[in-house]
Amino acid sequence: MAEKLWQGRFEQPTDKQVEEYTASIHFDSRLYRYDIEGSIAHCRMLGECNIIPHEDASLIVEALGQILREIERGQLDLSSSQEDIHMAIEQKLTQKIGDVGGKLHTARSRNDQICLDMRLYMRDVILQCRSLLLDVQKSFVDVAEQNLGVTMPGYTHMQHAQPVLLSHHMMAYYEMFHRDDERLQDCYKRTNVLPLGSAALAGTTFPIDMEWTARYLKFPRVVSNSMDAVSDRDYLIEFNAAAAILMMHISRLAEELILWSTTEFAFIEISDAFCTGSSIMPQKKNPDVPELMRGKTARVYGNLMALLTLTKALPLAYNRDLQEDKEPVFDTVDTVMSTLRLLAKLLPEIRFNAERMAKMAKEGFTLATDLADYLVRKGIPFRKAHHIVGQIVQHCIHDGKELEECSLEELKGFHKVFDSDVYPFLEMAAVVDRRTSLGGTASSRVREAITRARAEIETKERTLKS
Amino acid sequence: MAEKLWQGRFEQPTDKQVEEYTASIHFDSRLYRYDIEGSIAHCRMLGECNIIPHEDASLIVEALGQILREIERGQLDLSSSQEDIHMAIEQKLTQKIGDVGGKLHTARSRNDQICLDMRLYMRDVILQCRSLLLDVQKSFVDVAEQNLGVTMPGYTHMQHAQPVLLSHHMMAYYEMFHRDDERLQDCYKRTNVLPLGSAALAGTTFPIDMEWTARYLKFPRVVSNSMDAVSDRDYLIEFNAAAAILMMHISRLAEELILWSTTEFAFIEISDAFCTGSSIMPQKKNPDVPELMRGKTARVYGNLMALLTLTKALPLAYNRDLQEDKEPVFDTVDTVMSTLRLLAKLLPEIRFNAERMAKMAKEGFTLATDLADYLVRKGIPFRKAHHIVGQIVQHCIHDGKELEECSLEELKGFHKVFDSDVYPFLEMAAVVDRRTSLGGTASSRVREAITRARAEIETKERTLKS
Amino acid sequence: MAEKLWQGRFEQPTDKQVEEYTASIHFDSRLYRYDIEGSIAHCRMLGECNIIPHEDASLIVEALGQILREIERGQLDLSSSQEDIHMAIEQKLTQKIGDVGGKLHTARSRNDQICLDMRLYMRDVILQCRSLLLDVQKSFVDVAEQNLGVTMPGYTHMQHAQPVLLSHHMMAYYEMFHRDDERLQDCYKRTNVLPLGSAALAGTTFPIDMEWTARYLKFPRVVSNSMDAVSDRDYLIEFNAAAAILMMHISRLAEELILWSTTEFAFIEISDAFCTGSSIMPQKKNPDVPELMRGKTARVYGNLMALLTLTKALPLAYNRDLQEDKEPVFDTVDTVMSTLRLLAKLLPEIRFNAERMAKMAKEGFTLATDLADYLVRKGIPFRKAHHIVGQIVQHCIHDGKELEECSLEELKGFHKVFDSDVYPFLEMAAVVDRRTSLGGTASSRVREAITRARAEIETKERTLKS
Amino acid sequence: MAEKLWQGRFEQPTDKQVEEYTASIHFDSRLYRYDIEGSIAHCRMLGECNIIPHEDASLIVEALGQILREIERGQLDLSSSQEDIHMAIEQKLTQKIGDVGGKLHTARSRNDQICLDMRLYMRDVILQCRSLLLDVQKSFVDVAEQNLGVTMPGYTHMQHAQPVLLSHHMMAYYEMFHRDDERLQDCYKRTNVLPLGSAALAGTTFPIDMEWTARYLKFPRVVSNSMDAVSDRDYLIEFNAAAAILMMHISRLAEELILWSTTEFAFIEISDAFCTGSSIMPQKKNPDVPELMRGKTARVYGNLMALLTLTKALPLAYNRDLQEDKEPVFDTVDTVMSTLRLLAKLLPEIRFNAERMAKMAKEGFTLATDLADYLVRKGIPFRKAHHIVGQIVQHCIHDGKELEECSLEELKGFHKVFDSDVYPFLEMAAVVDRRTSLGGTASSRVREAITRARAEIETKERTLKS
Repeated sequence: MAEKLWQGRFEQPTDKQVEEYTASIHFDSRLYRYDIEGSIAHCRMLGECNIIPHEDASLIVEALGQILREIERGQLDLSSSQEDIHMAIEQKLTQKIGDVGGKLHTARSRNDQICLDMRLYMRDVILQCRSLLLDVQKSFVDVAEQNLGVTMPGYTHMQHAQPVLLSHHMMAYYEMFHRDDERLQDCYKRTNVLPLGSAALAGTTFPIDMEWTARYLKFPRVVSNSMDAVSDRDYLIEFNAAAAILMMHISRLAEELILWSTTEFAFIEISDAFCTGSSIMPQKKNPDVPELMRGKTARVYGNLMALLTLTKALPLAYNRDLQEDKEPVFDTVDTVMSTLRLLAKLLPEIRFNAERMAKMAKEGFTLATDLADYLVRKGIPFRKAHHIVGQIVQHCIHDGKELEECSLEELKGFHKVFDSDVYPFLEMAAVVDRRTSLGGTASSRVREAITRARAEIETKERTLKS
Repeated sequence: MAEKLWQGRFEQPTDKQVEEYTASIHFDSRLYRYDIEGSIAHCRMLGECNIIPHEDASLIVEALGQILREIERGQLDLSSSQEDIHMAIEQKLTQKIGDVGGKLHTARSRNDQICLDMRLYMRDVILQCRSLLLDVQKSFVDVAEQNLGVTMPGYTHMQHAQPVLLSHHMMAYYEMFHRDDERLQDCYKRTNVLPLGSAALAGTTFPIDMEWTARYLKFPRVVSNSMDAVSDRDYLIEFNAAAAILMMHISRLAEELILWSTTEFAFIEISDAFCTGSSIMPQKKNPDVPELMRGKTARVYGNLMALLTLTKALPLAYNRDLQEDKEPVFDTVDTVMSTLRLLAKLLPEIRFNAERMAKMAKEGFTLATDLADYLVRKGIPFRKAHHIVGQIVQHCIHDGKELEECSLEELKGFHKVFDSDVYPFLEMAAVVDRRTSLGGTASSRVREAITRARAEIETKERTLKS
Repeated sequence: MAEKLWQGRFEQPTDKQVEEYTASIHFDSRLYRYDIEGSIAHCRMLGECNIIPHEDASLIVEALGQILREIERGQLDLSSSQEDIHMAIEQKLTQKIGDVGGKLHTARSRNDQICLDMRLYMRDVILQCRSLLLDVQKSFVDVAEQNLGVTMPGYTHMQHAQPVLLSHHMMAYYEMFHRDDERLQDCYKRTNVLPLGSAALAGTTFPIDMEWTARYLKFPRVVSNSMDAVSDRDYLIEFNAAAAILMMHISRLAEELILWSTTEFAFIEISDAFCTGSSIMPQKKNPDVPELMRGKTARVYGNLMALLTLTKALPLAYNRDLQEDKEPVFDTVDTVMSTLRLLAKLLPEIRFNAERMAKMAKEGFTLATDLADYLVRKGIPFRKAHHIVGQIVQHCIHDGKELEECSLEELKGFHKVFDSDVYPFLEMAAVVDRRTSLGGTASSRVREAITRARAEIETKERTLKS
Repeated sequence: MAEKLWQGRFEQPTDKQVEEYTASIHFDSRLYRYDIEGSIAHCRMLGECNIIPHEDASLIVEALGQILREIERGQLDLSSSQEDIHMAIEQKLTQKIGDVGGKLHTARSRNDQICLDMRLYMRDVILQCRSLLLDVQKSFVDVAEQNLGVTMPGYTHMQHAQPVLLSHHMMAYYEMFHRDDERLQDCYKRTNVLPLGSAALAGTTFPIDMEWTARYLKFPRVVSNSMDAVSDRDYLIEFNAAAAILMMHISRLAEELILWSTTEFAFIEISDAFCTGSSIMPQKKNPDVPELMRGKTARVYGNLMALLTLTKALPLAYNRDLQEDKEPVFDTVDTVMSTLRLLAKLLPEIRFNAERMAKMAKEGFTLATDLADYLVRKGIPFRKAHHIVGQIVQHCIHDGKELEECSLEELKGFHKVFDSDVYPFLEMAAVVDRRTSLGGTASSRVREAITRARAEIETKERTLKS
């Protein structure tokens, strides 16, 4: 590695193996754009405030712009030069314009610089995640709309509970993702704060104008305490916690898609293009994509745990441990983004077997609650109604028939209020459409939910574009 | 255990060991107040909507009120009766008023009932946590104000970096807790939604008025999807994630208090009343309280991991696994509340050794950055200034002296721009007070921060009271 | 609380709230038997070595025995007396026999005392877990033996892969539990070491005989380093890691039982006594026991994470944080034991639907691998055979038929080596029994596995009894 | 990507984005050597058993050898060809020798192949870790031996407790690493089992000889159940759990080195070559290496959590989620290995400040326990002695002096048994050397421990070499 920019007080050069162990360039080089963007802002401010001469500032800004372009064109290799992205870029700068490049680091430290880089990066990341999440939400609303007539068994404890609309089931995920989006927005607020100017930990003695830099970089706020600023990693942990919940939601969907793809359920078929085969079994077509989505949830949980463990019991202010915050965050970002991107594409590749779903919606005595409700409407207290229907179910299991196959006489044997109006009461469409409580599965309610969702999506799209 | 209220369809009684394994009454009995509050609201609504007769509703509501009073007076033992708090209270109800008690469970399921209970509970918990957090924040501002003159070494990598004000260090924690409070508020928004009416998973067929119930229980919103409603545990995970970050902050403080209590640091002494001794070593006085605060961070992390693991890959809607959500949440609530309560009391019990702190603030060449800044002001590029001062430091180490003990001649040997104005430049008060960047450690900035904090606290206090 | 036994050097009494926060008596009272057992051993040794007079030792030992009996008879309430179990018992002792009781704590500290208590406790716990695990393993072998003829689909990616024997599937769990047992044994070795004599951290100045105590308490080894001894919590973490893997295995089984209980799979029915119903849906019969087993895995993971977080970066030797090691361990112990106990009872309560399983074993082209193997035996390279059968499968999907329903002519259309011997080759029993590789699903191999397992169980039973 | 080897039954090609999401070649290419080694063994066995012609086997083995050499010479780029390492190598093979290459995959599946690769890899990894750990242990023994005379304060609760030898403190870590090594050995036993022959999940129909392969690859055992074999990841989790405990130990040491490097402690100085500086503060010399060691503990914890989460509730047998097992394991392996390698080098770079340590060993009334022991030897019950010394300590704090500075008269004021023999009793060397209990800090005991350690190391070295 090149000579260290902090070597002044040292008598021995850094050990080779130590250099490797402590280097971060192989992962923080990902931040080059933000590092340069932040340096340009800082340098312009230094010029504006006459902390460095205007012409020096211009020279530096121009050279930084060149370096950015060279990196983007692949003409600059950052990987093996210096210990981290900041030093790498500063070195290139000094190679280009000589000693004047050394003025850039006036009134700042790597401690506040890396915080700025990460906040700039995370702002972008959060907006991109929100945008991808919006695409996913659209996919769910599309599927819900396209399948509005389809009935399926609603499950609790994985047992048939009551019939629901497939669209209702899909819209449940829409709601989860809506909360995920809210969490990302909340996290964004706490990310969107300028830390630059906190310097090493105590603030700087130079007459900088942090509000100028904030305006330039579009930060609505400046940090309130320099020691907090350089040691705060809350926004990274919070993002990772939001991502963990998001992945948890996706893992639930993935589990369902995998189940629904089994020969036993046979509710869906995922297109060939989204499945893979087996090296040994010629017939296999596996739902690899949802399996991996489910599996990748684990690494996001692991990253969250790593970040929490990392920051526990660290004294103020900056400690080198904090360098370890980046890889878990980058891995979570990559995982969440690739998963969201693929999820939006996966949904249209699913063929729902409406006939099979409707058939199963009836099995397993899914109408039993309605039968109890029927009795309640005839004045029987709910608990008693529940008990009576429980016994009818037991009777049907013994006789191997469904509830609606019981004769009126049989039903009257359990309670005299049963009458012939019980049969239309148990018809599937009626059963579903009677659930008109707010958020219920009645088609009227589901249609409302879809309309509301479309409006929400449109609003968010407008906000994200602006 | 008593007979099950769902026994109708079963031929065999539940196995004794299964009853024990599946019971939740030993921990969910904590929710009795919320369960009754929710049942009263539900029952009034059933009456309002004529789903059950008005007089039945009144009878049930009155009996529920009695049950509540009996529990609070310790006259009712819930612990060994039924499988869970819902069944326990319903059973007491039926014992009191007979079959009509069976009407209470019309149009609801335990699935939406427990969600309501937990949301009512968590609303309270979050507000209580916010209030305790506010007391903690006040303690920090008090300490900051009382110690405004005290200088101490600011650390990075646990090495002396630059002098800072103790008050500035304390206000860093104020800021962390401020973000914690924001996160609690954000979580509150997503907690404060009425799930009741979602029934088992699909909504209910009874003409209930969820908005009536929402108004009665002061929920600004009703859930949008019944399947999501009964399986959503996001607000619990999110609370636990916020709690984990909060405990992480406390663990950082605790670590510092433990360090500062060592013979080597000797920065603080915690009062006898907040320490304990040793069973074998008569001289010992141990900082047990911060040690346990640091240690208890671990269980909150563990609880978060448990909740995330629990919900991963669960198909919709309710699954019995979700019963396991309560104990980790309760443990986190108890841990966070007792820790915050004690933390607010701990701070005033700390005696800061101002003299020792001030003495150490100078050691370890903490003025080196200012010396470099001095050179920059004389026109030397920062990088070069940094290098020169690095060499002066090396020189001082060899000679066993501090920077300000170098003669002007010696300094000039390193660079000719050094002049006699360098000595006043390096005076401690000047060094600290020169850091006037926003959020910096200059006393003017710290005083501003204290004033701002006092105003924030007042505002929050008003909000929390209303 | 009573006066502290370490109060000598303190001027103020401990704050009430601090007492509550730091107390451990509400959970460590569980260790009373081990604490007394350890104290008796220690006291006898003190007498043997003439560190305290023989008659004092006898007096103390007798009084400790009385205290033990009083606790076991419920005559002694430990809960509200002292800060921890050690102080509580020492206080009772002094109440009984006066000042001479104060001699018991000679040459030891609570630091090594608690380590002894936990090691004694964990030795018992590990042996009990091993014994419960053995019962579980027996259940699996029983089920495997009873269902030897039953064929079912073997799954990969939850897709039908190849037919297997249900017994083979069950014996897979036997193997997992076998490894769990090995891990428990390995952990036992590292638990079974005497720490007493390490005192606070440095060893003791009294001429104690640790080997005497070790023999008395049946420890084969004494610790090698006193500082390590009082701060070592490896054996607790290691036990929890082994428990986490064990619960992971159980969660896999639980997932399968839940799936197999669905209407769609309909492979098994769990007896009424092991299921519970719904408060709203009269037909429901839910597999709560496996659901909770799956769910309880989460808390054991959480406990592991708590223990690791707790011990990270703690300086030597004892720190008060370590008090927080007990609750996660106790919770894991309770969870694992109750789960194992119930699992052994659950298996016989499962009715396997052999007919349904056999029917499904054929569906989904599960014979495709064998068809490819057929071609390989006729000299076609495997990759080519795989490709040919893949196309036959595609053809069958289009025609809506199974592989064995293809005419010889059709098959020959794909490759000329097909002959009439292909049909017997594809018969189910032949397909299964041909998999005679070691550990394969051929009934001959499964029978061998059962025999081997029976022998292993017998050996372990003998060891555990001795 | 190239055509899939399982494409036979598929009508559509795999989606580009799906290929990227599901590919593992970018991380599993690390396994190339093991994959080829396993394939060679498998192929030879196929030849031996006449499952494929001998000459085909020879052809394949030779070509595999060529491929290995080409990869090692950097002549073969695996990264962008196929979805995983198995397919990549099989493709190269077929390119080299045509259709006969297709015979290699006879009687195996990627499911058992990857298990073999990972077990071969982990065997190597565990042995390498053990060897690195041994180097670390040697470093500790060296340091212990070189510093045998150095006294330092022993800490509990970070408060001065009793004086100990620095060598004793160092040997505590030796013991921790000894247990780590035992855990690695135990894990090795469960890793060292041949899974090949389990095929997809059910075993194979070909007359393979698994014991031949086991002998060839030096596996002492063959798996007992094919379904377990392809879904077992215990050995990876167990390794990661052992690694987590190991990193926890290192984090404790790291914390101490960081503390000891502070200006306040000033116990050690780490050489320049193992420290780095600051971009802003010219005087800084930071203990980055221990800081990063402490920080890297977090990622190993995270990886463990990821692996446990991943495998929870996965039905048998193989699921694609399991592909996610590799990256956490590889990351843990890299972290542990680089950390151990550097730790062994770090220790000799530490200069201990023996004078400072010895000075601090006396401060904080570290002799109080000995003073109490003195009283006990004169017949005072320990509890009473403890109380008396507590009051002497209080007296000394008020008078600002140390225990040994009290006059005999003063001491007699607290209890009449004090005599002039108390002063030699409190001399530092006497105090330390009196702690001769097994594992105690007396120099005689520490010397014994060093001798024992040297012997253990020698034995292990011999075993690891063989």
